[in-house]
Amino acid sequence: MPNKRTLKLGLIQHACPVDVSPKQNLAHAIDMIRDAAGQGAQLIATQELFTASYFPQVQDESHFDLAEPIPGPTSQTLCDLAKELQVDLSASLFEKRAPGVYHNTSIMIDPAGQITSQYRKMHIPDDPRFYEKYYFTPGDAPANAPTVSPNAPTNAESDRSEGSDCPLPPTPPATPPGPNGFTAQHTRHATTAMLICWDQWFPEAARLSALQGAELLLYPTAIAWHKEEADEENQRQRESWQIIQRSHAIANGLFVAAINRVGTENDLTFWGSSFITDPGGQIIAQASTDQEEILIAECDLSLIEQTRRGWPFLRDRRIDAYAGLSQRMIDHD
Amino acid sequence: MPNKRTLKLGLIQHACPVDVSPKQNLAHAIDMIRDAAGQGAQLIATQELFTASYFPQVQDESHFDLAEPIPGPTSQTLCDLAKELQVDLSASLFEKRAPGVYHNTSIMIDPAGQITSQYRKMHIPDDPRFYEKYYFTPGDAPANAPTVSPNAPTNAESDRSEGSDCPLPPTPPATPPGPNGFTAQHTRHATTAMLICWDQWFPEAARLSALQGAELLLYPTAIAWHKEEADEENQRQRESWQIIQRSHAIANGLFVAAINRVGTENDLTFWGSSFITDPGGQIIAQASTDQEEILIAECDLSLIEQTRRGWPFLRDRRIDAYAGLSQRMIDHD
Repeated sequence: MPNKRTLKLGLIQHACPVDVSPKQNLAHAIDMIRDAAGQGAQLIATQELFTASYFPQVQDESHFDLAEPIPGPTSQTLCDLAKELQVDLSASLFEKRAPGVYHNTSIMIDPAGQITSQYRKMHIPDDPRFYEKYYFTPGDAPANAPTVSPNAPTNAESDRSEGSDCPLPPTPPATPPGPNGFTAQHTRHATTAMLICWDQWFPEAARLSALQGAELLLYPTAIAWHKEEADEENQRQRESWQIIQRSHAIANGLFVAAINRVGTENDLTFWGSSFITDPGGQIIAQASTDQEEILIAECDLSLIEQTRRGWPFLRDRRIDAYAGLSQRMIDHD
Repeated sequence: MPNKRTLKLGLIQHACPVDVSPKQNLAHAIDMIRDAAGQGAQLIATQELFTASYFPQVQDESHFDLAEPIPGPTSQTLCDLAKELQVDLSASLFEKRAPGVYHNTSIMIDPAGQITSQYRKMHIPDDPRFYEKYYFTPGDAPANAPTVSPNAPTNAESDRSEGSDCPLPPTPPATPPGPNGFTAQHTRHATTAMLICWDQWFPEAARLSALQGAELLLYPTAIAWHKEEADEENQRQRESWQIIQRSHAIANGLFVAAINRVGTENDLTFWGSSFITDPGGQIIAQASTDQEEILIAECDLSLIEQTRRGWPFLRDRRIDAYAGLSQRMIDHD
């Protein structure tokens, strides 16, 4: 078996009350990120669109004012923070790419304070109180475009790991931010893939990330119960949400982390429950449904190979027979 | 919402002790199938390779003698049974296709006693005590070959439904048995897809079945605990096995049924636990881990459209970005 490699992962679950400004939400999240770093988290991830209340509850043109270019003021603040804390930081932002073209975007920032990767949400939901197709242009790059650096990582002075007796993957050279489809990105301690919320319902997204080497899928999320739904139905929804993400861990033999907000915003109560699974789909850490929490877990990355040797699904995929997956439906008439 | 359509589904979970002959196992299963039909089951499904103990525990050339052509003696017995009982019957058999070419095959038999569809296991496992790559040639047809009848079904005299006040899908004309990849097949009450055991770990197989119109995935299975494994690990394995199959129901908005054997055969104890989920992934019926059982549930097929309207994942698939799924790994160097 390979040497043990670990990642101490920190997830930031908080509320974004409707009467709190983006600036205040950002400051609050920064406090929590500092706290997570203080607890030893090496990679820290925010919930979806963490600087604002969940504005897609309504279609309102003025909400486009919340979007910022990347790089932009908020991303710069986060880059400075990552550098100060010497952490990898994955943040979910509302991106202004061009006038009239806005994306739901995640960025990965390395401990040098550089944006090393960018992912624009590929699957966009749209149903009552989740009017995301109004706001978010779908991510647009092909699945097989190179997204991790084509240069072999070098074990240069950029490897800032200290006090560890385990061999760590070196920090790759920074890749310029840019549009991409399903991606994987090297960070200091693990290869990650940043997917976003609705993506979590699509096994294709998880698989394409795994095939690019992802060891950890990050799903910043804003998922909620509607106040008029019965409690039983609410619990079913939350269970489905957990099962589908645990299934990605199982099918692909990798770690999965979901980061969801808490609190009531108008008609929606976000159910929190941020969690981390191991490559067998077992939950190794889970937050409450209604409290702000910093969820931290140490991920033993050597479990990935161990799990995949036991149940070698990636060996047995029938890649000769999957062409139909690129069809909407497979009609025979 | 569409009219309510229902399917009364029956699963046959039993033991295949190592000292019992295939002839005796077949007779025992026939008794249980009769019982299920007597309880009103309209579609009945066997567990994987239900006429024999799980012979792939060892590599033994003589075990190829268990294989039969299809049509063959066992399939003919089952066709006669389906006709007598007026049920749709899905059976898992060890098929001899040619000298040296054997398949792990499911057939669908209609109430006229005709084999209407045939599926040859596409994903073949191989690990200690599950030496399936030795015995089973992988299914060989492309994913997008037409497998359901190209003729629009007609509401002919072949529709034998009686005593129902619901409009039923008509029985399609029989399609000749033949090799096929991932398939869907019309039966009297539902469009099904027959997948087999190891297939259950591959979201691709479930998706390709759903895209062909499947309303119900059938997974005949032979999955077991090894006697030397710890109980905690055993429970994790069973949980993973349930989660991955429940995830297919969720991702695709359809019913899923798994049919597993029980009993100890040499080093393996098969964990039973046959179950049926609704299109939300909720388990609506589940058998024990160690008893022979006929598991029957009424499936309300109208839940499929209702579920998919609520969470319209099939609407939002990014078919422009899934080409990479036909790659083994997506390398960027």
